[in-house]
Amino acid sequence: MIGFIGLGIMGKPMAKHLLGALKELAVYDLQEGPVKELTDLGAAYMTPAEMARKCDVIHCILPTGAIVQNVLFAEDGVLEQAGALKIVCDHSSVTPEESRACAEKLAPKGIGFVDCPVSGGEPKAIDGTLAFMAGGRQEDFDALKPHFEAMGSSAVLVGDVGSGSIAKLVNQVIVNLNIAAVSEAFVLCEKAGADPQKVYEAIRGGLAGSTVLDAKIPKILAGDFAPGGTINVNRKDINNVLSTAHTCECPMPLSSQLFEIMQYLSAHGHLMDDHAGIVQYFEELADVKVRAH
Amino acid sequence: MIGFIGLGIMGKPMAKHLLGALKELAVYDLQEGPVKELTDLGAAYMTPAEMARKCDVIHCILPTGAIVQNVLFAEDGVLEQAGALKIVCDHSSVTPEESRACAEKLAPKGIGFVDCPVSGGEPKAIDGTLAFMAGGRQEDFDALKPHFEAMGSSAVLVGDVGSGSIAKLVNQVIVNLNIAAVSEAFVLCEKAGADPQKVYEAIRGGLAGSTVLDAKIPKILAGDFAPGGTINVNRKDINNVLSTAHTCECPMPLSSQLFEIMQYLSAHGHLMDDHAGIVQYFEELADVKVRAH
Repeated sequence: MIGFIGLGIMGKPMAKHLLGALKELAVYDLQEGPVKELTDLGAAYMTPAEMARKCDVIHCILPTGAIVQNVLFAEDGVLEQAGALKIVCDHSSVTPEESRACAEKLAPKGIGFVDCPVSGGEPKAIDGTLAFMAGGRQEDFDALKPHFEAMGSSAVLVGDVGSGSIAKLVNQVIVNLNIAAVSEAFVLCEKAGADPQKVYEAIRGGLAGSTVLDAKIPKILAGDFAPGGTINVNRKDINNVLSTAHTCECPMPLSSQLFEIMQYLSAHGHLMDDHAGIVQYFEELADVKVRAH
Repeated sequence: MIGFIGLGIMGKPMAKHLLGALKELAVYDLQEGPVKELTDLGAAYMTPAEMARKCDVIHCILPTGAIVQNVLFAEDGVLEQAGALKIVCDHSSVTPEESRACAEKLAPKGIGFVDCPVSGGEPKAIDGTLAFMAGGRQEDFDALKPHFEAMGSSAVLVGDVGSGSIAKLVNQVIVNLNIAAVSEAFVLCEKAGADPQKVYEAIRGGLAGSTVLDAKIPKILAGDFAPGGTINVNRKDINNVLSTAHTCECPMPLSSQLFEIMQYLSAHGHLMDDHAGIVQYFEELADVKVRAH
């Protein structure tokens, strides 16, 4: 049996794909609604402790590293109750230090740990086309491959435990700073008097082109910041970036400024907006809205 | 007859494509070498004043807005000597204020002005696949279309005079800040202990994917900063960004920091490197090199 802990925005569609492929799956979440949705589809409800006794693999995807540690290592948790358990695969977006700590605590009982964050957000979780970036042992990664194929379209073993989490941090720095760059550039476009829609068309095929540009400019031009990935979740990731950077003494002049921009956005009521809403910081600085003319 | 002024890294291949399409072309540059190269191919040599008397269109691409103004408006220059001249099309990377000033000075003699910077760099100039972003009147843009088709693969009329230059500034902000974002992210990757090559493979298909990422990561991993577009040229563009932003009172917290990063790179001997060399600022901050493991 395989277990899945955490049926949130990302976890619920991931668990559905896994259930579809494996035909049986144990699930757990604190919320009754998503648990019922999965058990109605044929999944079994189990507590993390039951899973630890009966499942050989547990996947989890949870809001923070502290919650992951609690599920795994609290009294009556996964580690204490471990029976059949061979591998824990954590899809949460955490720091590499947290991932390495999990691996070290599980190792004495012979349980492998793979840190395996995802990219693609809710739409790709629903489509089953997530990208998995994994850190761990080759044999554990190989054992998990059928699961990755059920839930996503690509999986790369980046390196040892922690490497998946590092890849996710790198991803989040690039994504959020590129959104900030696009935002500052298009606010200038608007202030200087050109039509942002036309400028977008003129530049998107060149070196300025990116997945962020194509995904976020339509939202920015429409002033539509319904999430998608919230500033809240991305702020947690950039906080993890800075925490890891502090640990390894890596100066982060741009990411630290980005974090302060996210604090501004939180203070001004934009925390639950899509991260395309980063543009609102630059719009409010310049007292202008970026809109098609 | 059509004239072409400025046979530098970009202008020479552009003029060759134009000559190939039109079969005749007048050319001018201060350097004898590229002039001879073009006249050997069948072009005619003319001074800007001769071109102004005999050509109905003059294209130019020059290092700075001040040089453009000098060629057009100095004593015995284009404006003073204008005879057959109907349209000046400036491909230089300048500020929209400079473009508007040119248009205003040419208008009393009935000469149209189109500011039409390019994106794609030397490789696309040589391939004849540049992207043109134009500002000016529809009828002037339409008259120039066969020329754009000879030299590039796309041309967008963004809006009135100045709009082409604004589009180029927007382009340069996004390109250079995205290079800086990728640089900071991959320096963290290296410091935190993951293989940058593997992380690149894991994230390139997701929301972090961009033309910059695919174009610059191979150069960064190889420590190969042969230009391409130099930090020198891109620093001029970011200086133009800040100049325009000052004019229209648009705060630019990220671009102003980027300019200071470019000043650091100049002070440390990296000015003539490809702008992928922006990574060297972050590498030197963290005392590490980003290389495949």
